[in-house]
Amino acid sequence: MNKQATPPQSFYPPSRRLMGPGPTDISPRVLAAMSRPTLGHLDPDFIDMTEDLKQMLQQAFKTENSYTIPLSSPASAAMEAAIINILEPGEKIIVCRNGVFGMRMSDIIERAGGEVVAVDDEWGKTIDLQKVEDAIKQHPDAIALAFVYAETSTGVRSDAAALAKMARTADMLSIVDCVTALGGIDLRVDEWGLDLVYSGSQKCLAAPPGLAPMTINERALKKIASRSTKVQSWFLDFNLLGGYFQGSDANKGGSKKRAYHHTAPINSLYALHESLVVLLEEGLDASFKRHQLMHLALEAGLSAMGIELTVDKEWRLPQLNSVGLPDSVDDAAVRSHLLKEHSLEIGAGLGASAGKIWRIGLMGYGARQENVFHCLTALEDALANQGFVLTAGKALPAARKVLTNK
Amino acid sequence: MNKQATPPQSFYPPSRRLMGPGPTDISPRVLAAMSRPTLGHLDPDFIDMTEDLKQMLQQAFKTENSYTIPLSSPASAAMEAAIINILEPGEKIIVCRNGVFGMRMSDIIERAGGEVVAVDDEWGKTIDLQKVEDAIKQHPDAIALAFVYAETSTGVRSDAAALAKMARTADMLSIVDCVTALGGIDLRVDEWGLDLVYSGSQKCLAAPPGLAPMTINERALKKIASRSTKVQSWFLDFNLLGGYFQGSDANKGGSKKRAYHHTAPINSLYALHESLVVLLEEGLDASFKRHQLMHLALEAGLSAMGIELTVDKEWRLPQLNSVGLPDSVDDAAVRSHLLKEHSLEIGAGLGASAGKIWRIGLMGYGARQENVFHCLTALEDALANQGFVLTAGKALPAARKVLTNK
Repeated sequence: MNKQATPPQSFYPPSRRLMGPGPTDISPRVLAAMSRPTLGHLDPDFIDMTEDLKQMLQQAFKTENSYTIPLSSPASAAMEAAIINILEPGEKIIVCRNGVFGMRMSDIIERAGGEVVAVDDEWGKTIDLQKVEDAIKQHPDAIALAFVYAETSTGVRSDAAALAKMARTADMLSIVDCVTALGGIDLRVDEWGLDLVYSGSQKCLAAPPGLAPMTINERALKKIASRSTKVQSWFLDFNLLGGYFQGSDANKGGSKKRAYHHTAPINSLYALHESLVVLLEEGLDASFKRHQLMHLALEAGLSAMGIELTVDKEWRLPQLNSVGLPDSVDDAAVRSHLLKEHSLEIGAGLGASAGKIWRIGLMGYGARQENVFHCLTALEDALANQGFVLTAGKALPAARKVLTNK
Repeated sequence: MNKQATPPQSFYPPSRRLMGPGPTDISPRVLAAMSRPTLGHLDPDFIDMTEDLKQMLQQAFKTENSYTIPLSSPASAAMEAAIINILEPGEKIIVCRNGVFGMRMSDIIERAGGEVVAVDDEWGKTIDLQKVEDAIKQHPDAIALAFVYAETSTGVRSDAAALAKMARTADMLSIVDCVTALGGIDLRVDEWGLDLVYSGSQKCLAAPPGLAPMTINERALKKIASRSTKVQSWFLDFNLLGGYFQGSDANKGGSKKRAYHHTAPINSLYALHESLVVLLEEGLDASFKRHQLMHLALEAGLSAMGIELTVDKEWRLPQLNSVGLPDSVDDAAVRSHLLKEHSLEIGAGLGASAGKIWRIGLMGYGARQENVFHCLTALEDALANQGFVLTAGKALPAARKVLTNK
């Protein structure tokens, strides 16, 4: 306790343009939804809203899974939930690791008493299917294959459909991290046979951070039902969460009675609901197309400045662009200039790529022309400020050309 | 996926008066804070805001613990975090159970491989200190004593100071559930020697649900540091959370560098911050006094209607009033009438007390005269609608008398 505490003061955040790895820019429409009057979590109107929300999540995930819920926690808790609900001590999971989040999966598995079979790829490269095939052959007793569809730490996409098919063929479950994917690139949970899938609210859905949409199919629920031990976590137990978000099947005649579990984050759910309305109004395909177009415009503008994306073209995520730093540029100075002079946030590299790349997000509401233009002009200014003035003025026309020739 | 899905529609909640066990009424001021522009979770302005928030939490908890953080999850996750961070498999915890939340603690301990020593009291009664003393004597090897200071399921207070002292004397840690307590009744974390303490945003702090303020002292951190096993949960590991919310001590010279863990729920934290500003502007003592006064006014009004509180006077929580249902009244019909005709939510009984009590919350912004009056008049109307008309018109004058004679 600070004895000389100043009187408490309200906080008024500056208005930033968020073009990092998430949270992304949130539209005024979604922010407004968040501040509507709070309801009780057992209020019939609130329950109707969550039913509606779950149906929209099913559409966004392209699934008919009835177990499709918004977890009341950040996506990293959803990652943990997906793993610990199917894993029993001593069981094996094959984990593809080509970035931060594959590493995190390993940590979670080990803490839960599981065994990790690691398939490592270079950070910034996609997952090598052959290596995974080999690991599956060597470890046919593994219960699951875990991988990240859209690696937020590197901006790399993996071949989720192929990976899930391998898992299915070997009678393993697939655990698929779609945190940065959902709403930004094609994702077909049912068609691709993805078994346990989770995402986050603050990426391409463009709602404030804090919630994790999840969907789990019957194959995964069957494995959970066959457990001989209780799930180690009370808070993340899918049986209890199912009773809360879906109600009990005991009462088949009418509306299902929900079993109290925790108090849902009502206002955050309003925001997630509204972000899904926005997404479905636009349409999934239109959203994917917009993300791709803005990505190409950004790429063209950066390229005109002599800056290149670092990920192989085939595996680039349009919503998260890994950008190579020009030689000898001061990473922190540029990002600080962008923040202070332009109120613009971009992301730094993580781990091994710190100081080597920037991560520029174009997610959800943030994937729009004014953001591309602002980012390019601000970056030009920041680089000029560092003495890199070679290509000033060329970025915007190059980006505009992409946008007008779409 | 519903093939005949209607076009997505925005959700506009009705405006309720929330007088159940939480979430409580949220002030427009706090709702407005929640919809301010989202910042990145590594933005210097956001970090300054969380520092400010942590300092206000220290004041609210009356503690100098530097480990005082807003957990990015509901309070039930905080309960789990408090337990699993200190518990190693095979260790014992003594759990006081006189309501839902003591039971939940047991479940969490068992899932984590711990042993529960249960001290059971009747639901609706306070915790019997002698029984706890006996359990401590019989199980001197227990590592902790866990109890609920303010039982939300029954409206009962326990003697937190005495219980914590017993634990300390026996060299056990205390785990103290203060979900419904914080901001509503006296709570002195340091003076009483409470070791692991957690609360929720949606009770007497009157912020939207979803966050759990926690404070942990050096004694507890020492036990955590001495673990021979990793904490079973990655998401709830206090070591990792400390690195995220407090930064690393490695960099002692300047501002501490925060280690990325998860993406904090930015906008929910704005709301929690503002709710703490509101609380500290009023002052803790003034807030406790207001809760007590509104409680007495409600009690007087109910009593004039022939309805009595069920908890022993000494152990009543002013912020959560357990009210005995008049004989033969239809519980569900009354609550439904209140909701439909008066847009007023009160809580039902849980478990054994379902159908026997109502739980009327007077928490934070909800603990004000207009709420007391509205509740009394609406309840009178609902009971009249059921044929209970004996005392109509007497409730308000009785409540007003308490308020004017304060």
